[in-house]
Amino acid sequence: MDRCYVLGTIWATRKVAELEGFKMVLLAVKDYTLKNTSKLVVAVDILDVSPGDDVLITYGSGARNVLGNQELPIDAVVAGIVSEEV
Amino acid sequence: MDRCYVLGTIWATRKVAELEGFKMVLLAVKDYTLKNTSKLVVAVDILDVSPGDDVLITYGSGARNVLGNQELPIDAVVAGIVSEEV
Amino acid sequence: MDRCYVLGTIWATRKVAELEGFKMVLLAVKDYTLKNTSKLVVAVDILDVSPGDDVLITYGSGARNVLGNQELPIDAVVAGIVSEEV
Amino acid sequence: MDRCYVLGTIWATRKVAELEGFKMVLLAVKDYTLKNTSKLVVAVDILDVSPGDDVLITYGSGARNVLGNQELPIDAVVAGIVSEEV
Amino acid sequence: MDRCYVLGTIWATRKVAELEGFKMVLLAVKDYTLKNTSKLVVAVDILDVSPGDDVLITYGSGARNVLGNQELPIDAVVAGIVSEEV
Repeated sequence: MDRCYVLGTIWATRKVAELEGFKMVLLAVKDYTLKNTSKLVVAVDILDVSPGDDVLITYGSGARNVLGNQELPIDAVVAGIVSEEV
Repeated sequence: MDRCYVLGTIWATRKVAELEGFKMVLLAVKDYTLKNTSKLVVAVDILDVSPGDDVLITYGSGARNVLGNQELPIDAVVAGIVSEEV
Repeated sequence: MDRCYVLGTIWATRKVAELEGFKMVLLAVKDYTLKNTSKLVVAVDILDVSPGDDVLITYGSGARNVLGNQELPIDAVVAGIVSEEV
Repeated sequence: MDRCYVLGTIWATRKVAELEGFKMVLLAVKDYTLKNTSKLVVAVDILDVSPGDDVLITYGSGARNVLGNQELPIDAVVAGIVSEEV
Repeated sequence: MDRCYVLGTIWATRKVAELEGFKMVLLAVKDYTLKNTSKLVVAVDILDVSPGDDVLITYGSGARNVLGNQELPIDAVVAGIVSEEV
């Protein structure tokens, strides 16, 4: 998984039908020092995250597993919001 | 998904049969500041995007899900055109 | 697989249900000279690794194979702790 | 897909049996300005490309779909030769 | 596939059971000029390669296809030893 910073929400009025109804968020991937890298990712969000949140993103079949449907055109999903680390 | 800038359309007269009939577009992947990175991607487009459009690209099985056929030799597809973000 | 340095353990109180009960660790990917790169990865750990450990991370379906369940929203798992090299 | 420059053909006398009979080509991945990046890829070629050709490479299951066999130890295949772009 | 330089063999006494019995090698990924990049990969080796060998690595399901078992926690395998290029 990647650790990311939530930049905001993004909409696409013209999109493939299967994306209908999914909230999509714009994310910056964090590096080893927890600073934002330049890498940008767009993921589906079912945890209703907010800008500034520190989140975990899962990819590929793992992402579609969160939504319980391997037929979706989705390859990245928010899996959790970081609460603590040690 | 990646957020990309549409550079244009690309053709390949000599290609594997299964790519026949698909429109393919040339894309630059955007970074965290929404500038184009140097990373180039070629994806199938069924939304009929135009040069300059700001689009979302999905990869792997997620891409083939857009086309409803996991047997295709395709690993990247345009999933939407960004309309708004906040 | 990547070779990584264990930075510590990470928790996410708000997360997708299927991640419940899994220990997650924060890792820096090592480069060819065995120094930490800036790349950060979050993986599930069933070997109970500790900060500073030198570990191997497997990805995608290979990661879910470690947990014996391809339905999990997981895409990276600790597969081993490096003991020796020659 | 990546857009690549064909560097040449590569052989491996000692290889896994399932690679027997496949032509393999050495490729440099192109960037947004169509210059070669430093990234090197080795792919299977069934279109009989030549050094200097401008080609499209598909990856993962998409690559094995070109060869119609998901059991192959192949993860990259030449899918087309670029003829035109606008 | 990536083209890599074999650095040596690596062991992990504490590892997931399914890795038992597999030889694992440490590799540097080569770039377009055939120099080693900083990228480090760990792969399973069934061709008994040696330090300094010039090898091809396949990833994901393609890697598990080499071992004929998609249930393995493995995502990278040595597929061949480069003998010639032109």
